[in-house]
Amino acid sequence: MADWWMGGSLSSPECPPLTPAGFQDVHTMIFVGFGFLMVFLQRYGFSSVGFTFLLAAFALQWSTLVQGFFHSFHGGHIHVGVESMINADFCAGAVLISFGAILGKTGPAQLLLMALLEVVLFGLNEFVLLSLLGVKDAGGSMTIHTFGAYFGLVLSRVLYRPQLEKSKHRQGSVYHSDLFAMIGTIFLWIFWPSFNSAPTTLGDGQHRTALNTYYSLTASTLSTFALSALVGRDGQLDMPILESKLKVQDTCGVHNLHGMPGVLGALLGVLVAGLATHEAYGDGLESVFPLLAKGQRSATSQAMHQLFGLFVTLIFASVGGSLGGLLLRLPFLDSPPDSQCYEDQIYWEVRSPWSCPFTCSSILALQVPGEHEDLAQGPLRAEEPETRA
Amino acid sequence: MADWWMGGSLSSPECPPLTPAGFQDVHTMIFVGFGFLMVFLQRYGFSSVGFTFLLAAFALQWSTLVQGFFHSFHGGHIHVGVESMINADFCAGAVLISFGAILGKTGPAQLLLMALLEVVLFGLNEFVLLSLLGVKDAGGSMTIHTFGAYFGLVLSRVLYRPQLEKSKHRQGSVYHSDLFAMIGTIFLWIFWPSFNSAPTTLGDGQHRTALNTYYSLTASTLSTFALSALVGRDGQLDMPILESKLKVQDTCGVHNLHGMPGVLGALLGVLVAGLATHEAYGDGLESVFPLLAKGQRSATSQAMHQLFGLFVTLIFASVGGSLGGLLLRLPFLDSPPDSQCYEDQIYWEVRSPWSCPFTCSSILALQVPGEHEDLAQGPLRAEEPETRA
Amino acid sequence: MADWWMGGSLSSPECPPLTPAGFQDVHTMIFVGFGFLMVFLQRYGFSSVGFTFLLAAFALQWSTLVQGFFHSFHGGHIHVGVESMINADFCAGAVLISFGAILGKTGPAQLLLMALLEVVLFGLNEFVLLSLLGVKDAGGSMTIHTFGAYFGLVLSRVLYRPQLEKSKHRQGSVYHSDLFAMIGTIFLWIFWPSFNSAPTTLGDGQHRTALNTYYSLTASTLSTFALSALVGRDGQLDMPILESKLKVQDTCGVHNLHGMPGVLGALLGVLVAGLATHEAYGDGLESVFPLLAKGQRSATSQAMHQLFGLFVTLIFASVGGSLGGLLLRLPFLDSPPDSQCYEDQIYWEVRSPWSCPFTCSSILALQVPGEHEDLAQGPLRAEEPETRA
Repeated sequence: MADWWMGGSLSSPECPPLTPAGFQDVHTMIFVGFGFLMVFLQRYGFSSVGFTFLLAAFALQWSTLVQGFFHSFHGGHIHVGVESMINADFCAGAVLISFGAILGKTGPAQLLLMALLEVVLFGLNEFVLLSLLGVKDAGGSMTIHTFGAYFGLVLSRVLYRPQLEKSKHRQGSVYHSDLFAMIGTIFLWIFWPSFNSAPTTLGDGQHRTALNTYYSLTASTLSTFALSALVGRDGQLDMPILESKLKVQDTCGVHNLHGMPGVLGALLGVLVAGLATHEAYGDGLESVFPLLAKGQRSATSQAMHQLFGLFVTLIFASVGGSLGGLLLRLPFLDSPPDSQCYEDQIYWEVRSPWSCPFTCSSILALQVPGEHEDLAQGPLRAEEPETRA
Repeated sequence: MADWWMGGSLSSPECPPLTPAGFQDVHTMIFVGFGFLMVFLQRYGFSSVGFTFLLAAFALQWSTLVQGFFHSFHGGHIHVGVESMINADFCAGAVLISFGAILGKTGPAQLLLMALLEVVLFGLNEFVLLSLLGVKDAGGSMTIHTFGAYFGLVLSRVLYRPQLEKSKHRQGSVYHSDLFAMIGTIFLWIFWPSFNSAPTTLGDGQHRTALNTYYSLTASTLSTFALSALVGRDGQLDMPILESKLKVQDTCGVHNLHGMPGVLGALLGVLVAGLATHEAYGDGLESVFPLLAKGQRSATSQAMHQLFGLFVTLIFASVGGSLGGLLLRLPFLDSPPDSQCYEDQIYWEVRSPWSCPFTCSSILALQVPGEHEDLAQGPLRAEEPETRA
Repeated sequence: MADWWMGGSLSSPECPPLTPAGFQDVHTMIFVGFGFLMVFLQRYGFSSVGFTFLLAAFALQWSTLVQGFFHSFHGGHIHVGVESMINADFCAGAVLISFGAILGKTGPAQLLLMALLEVVLFGLNEFVLLSLLGVKDAGGSMTIHTFGAYFGLVLSRVLYRPQLEKSKHRQGSVYHSDLFAMIGTIFLWIFWPSFNSAPTTLGDGQHRTALNTYYSLTASTLSTFALSALVGRDGQLDMPILESKLKVQDTCGVHNLHGMPGVLGALLGVLVAGLATHEAYGDGLESVFPLLAKGQRSATSQAMHQLFGLFVTLIFASVGGSLGGLLLRLPFLDSPPDSQCYEDQIYWEVRSPWSCPFTCSSILALQVPGEHEDLAQGPLRAEEPETRA
C-alpha cells in the first residue's frame, strides 16, 4: 500500500490512491485556519498573515527534504507523493504553533532561522516516535501540538523581554481583527476532522478518526459555552502564572491552546492504548495498533511506549527551543525593539494608492528594519531609548 | 453497500467508502455559509455566529442520537459512519433555518430548547417521508427547507412581539456586516452542488444532482440579476403581508429564502415523479426512484406520495412550531426585552485588550442577561419600560 | 475511461469517476479566489464581486454549450458530466482574467457581450490546440492565462480612455478592500494544486501536476519575499511602459499576473516537451505526452507544436480582443463616464436599513445607469463635462 504514495509510478490501481482532497483540507487549515487566527492583533495583521506565508512556504520545502530523508529515500532519490505534501503541511503546522508563542516579537529572518532548526527536530522526533518506538499519534498530539507548543514556549522564555510593556497598547484586538480571528477559528473547526484523519489509512482508521474528532468538537464547543457562562467576567481563564512567574510571554496562548491539550491527548492516548483489545476494535485493531494486532506487543507495553514518546517529545522540544532561542538572540538579526513589537510598519510598506498600474498581488513589499525612520510615525520615534531583545 | 456507512467494520473495500470530502462540503456550508449569512445584522454579529455554533454543536449531537435510533439501531448499538455525520449536519441545517426566522429575538437557552424539540420532529418527519412513504427528497426541499422554514415561522408567530419597533434601529446592516453576508452567500453558492449530492449514491445519482444544482444556480443567478434590474428601487421584493397581516416577524426572510422555494421544489418534485419513465432515466431510475424501477409503484402513485409527504412535513412543522413557541414563552427563560433585540451586548462580553495573555479563542465569554446592568449602555437603559416577549 | 465523464450512464465502476471534490476546488478558486481578489478597489467592491458572479454564471452556461458542441456532441445531444463543469469553470476563469484588465471601466451589459464572444473564441482556441494540434496544456498556461490576459489587454487598448485620470482617486485600495484581496490571494494559493490537476487523469498525471504546483508555489513565494525585500520602495515592479507607451490601462495588472507568466509557462512547456524521454517519465509518459509514448511524434515535433499553439493562442486573443473592443464601443451600451469609473453607485443601490423584512440575499439591486441622477452624489455631478469611452 505504501507504493501509492510514491509519485514516480503507481503500482496496482485497485484501491485508488489517497485523493488530493485529503491533502486539500489540511492545506486549508494551515493557511486559512492558522493564518487568520493570528490576525487578532490590531496592528500586526499583515505581519501575521505575511509571516505565516513566509514560514509555511519555507517549512513546506525544507521538511519535504528532511522528512524525505527519514521516510522515503531510496536509490539515491527522495520519493514524493501526496503523503509527502501532507507530512510537510503537518510540520509547517508545528512551526506555526511555535510562531504563535513569539508572535509580534521577532523579525522574518529570525523566524526563518527558527524554522530551519525546528523542521529538523520535528522530523527527528517524528522518526523516533513513529518509526523507532512504534507510537501512534494520528492527530499529532505529540508530534505537532506538544512539540510545537513547548518548542515555542521555551524559545519565548529564552527571548524574554522585560520591557515588553512598551508595546502593551498594541497587544490587543479590535473589531476587524477579531473578525479575522473568527474566520480562522471557524475554518479550523470545520476542517479538523479531515486534518486528523488525513494521515490515517483509508477505511476504518480514517472513519474512526473523523468521527471521533467530529464528536469531540461538538461536545467541547457546548462545554466551552456552558463553562464560560458559569465562569463569567471575574473568573476568566487567564494564565497569569506563565508570564509573571515563569517569564514566558505567550502571545497567542499556545500553552492552553496546543501545549496542555497536546499533553492531555498524549496521556489519554496512553490510557486508551493500555485498554485496547481485539474485542473493542475488531478488524480495525490492525490499522490502529498494528503491533498489538500482530501480537508483537501487549497493550500495557504499547501504553508505556506512548508515555515514553511524550517524554521524548518534551525533551526534543525543550532542548530545541533553548538552542533556537540562543540562535535568535544573535545580534545581527532583525529583532524589533521592545517599543515596536506587534507593529506592521517596521516590516511592511503600504504603497500609495496613486501608483499605477496597481498590481493585485504586490500591495505590500517586505522591508528590513532600519530603512524606515521616516515611515516610523511620531508616536514610535518619541518613545524612550529602546532596548532590543 | 449500506455496510460502508457502519463505522464499526468495513466489509469489502472494493468500492471505496464515501470519501469524507462529501461530508466536508456539507459541513462548510452549515458553518461558513449559514453562519456568515446571518451576520448581516449590524450589532448582532457575534451572537449570529456564536449561536450558530452553539445550536449546531448541540443539534449535531442530539440528532446523531435521534436519527441513529430511527435508522441504524442494531444489536443494542447505534452504528455511526460518514452518513451519520452528513445526516446530522442536514438536521442542523434545518435548525439554523428556523433560527433565521427568530434571529435576534431569543436567548441561547431558548434556542437550545427549540433545538431539543425540533431535532426530534425533524427525525420523525424524515423517517415518515423517506422510510415509510418512500418519498424522494435528495436536496431536502421538504425535510430541510420546508420543515425548517415553517417550523421557524410558526414559532415566530407564537412569539410575536408587538413592540419590536423599539429595536428597529438595530435591525439593519452596515458595510462590514454586509461583507460577511456576502462571504456566506458565496460559500453557499459554491458548495451547493456538493451539499445536494452528498446523500445520494455514488455514481449516477450524485452526478445528476450535482449537475442539476450547478445549472440551476447559474441560471437563477442570471435571472435574479435581470429581474432586479427590471424591478428597480420601487418594486422591490418585499414581504409586507407576512408581517403586517399575519404577524410573522421573519428576520432573515426565511419564508422567501427557504419556505417558498422548499414548497416549490416539493411541487416540482411531484410533477417530475409523475413524469418519470425508464426511457428518461435509463439505468439511473433505480437510484432515483427505486420503487418505480422495481415496478412496485407507478409514477402517478409516486407523485401522490411526494405530495402527501409535503403535507406531512407542513403538519409536523406547524404543530411543532406552535409547541416550540409555547415552550419558548416560559417565563424563566432568557428572552431579551423588546428594546434589546438584535443586540450583542446582552449576551457577550468584550474583553479589554489589555488583559493578558490573550488567548485567541476565548475573546468573548457567554453571559446570561441580568448580570450586565453596567454593561447596558446609556441608550439602552434610558428607554421606556420594557416589555418582554 | 472517457465514459465516466458522460453523465448519462456510467459503465464499469471499477475505477471510480472523478470525485466532485476535484471540481469543487476549481469552483472555489473561480468564485472566492478571483472574486475576492478584485475587491481591492476601494469603491468597487460590490461591482467586483457582483459582476464576477454575473459573468461567471453566464460564462458557465454558455461555455457548457460551446465546449459541449466541440467535445461531447453525439447523437443529437451534448453529454455532460463532471468534466463539463470543470471545463466550463476554466473558461469562466479566462473570462474573469479579461475582466480584470478592464475592471471598473465597463458596465454589466458590455461585460456580458464580451463574454458572449470570448467564450466562443476560448472554445475554438482550446479545440484547435488540444484536439487538433495535440498540444498539452494541463494548467491552462496558454488556453486560460495567455488567452484571457491578452484578450483583455487588447480589448482594453481598444477601449482606451485618455481622460481616465478623472477617476484616479478611486483607483486605489483601502484597508478593508485589501483584506478581501488578501483572502482571495490565500484561497488561490491554497487551491492551485487542485485547480491545475483537476483536468488531468487520475493517477500519475494528477500526482505530478499537484506536486509540481505545490513546490512551485512555495518556492515562488519565498523568492517573492526575498526579491521585494531587496528591491524595496524605489525599485518597485511597476509596468509604466504598458500604460504610457502602449495605452493599455490594465486595472488588475493582468499582464504581469497572467500574461507574462502564461507566455513563460508556454515557453517552458516547449522546452520541457523537447526534452521529454521515456526514461524521464517512465510509465507516466503516456498520460503526459501520449503521442510521444505511442511513437507518433518526436519530442522536437511536440515542442514545435507547443510553440505553434502559443502563437495560435496569441492570434485568437488579439483578434478577439480587437473585435470585442469594437463591439463594446457600441454607443447604446452601458459604459460609465470617465469620471465615474471604479464606482459602485452607478450600478448598485444600497437599500435603507429600515426597510423590512430584510432578506439576506437581496441587499443590492442591480440598476442601469441613467436612472440614478439623484443617487450620483454632489462630487460626481460637479465634474467637468464627461467623456464616454
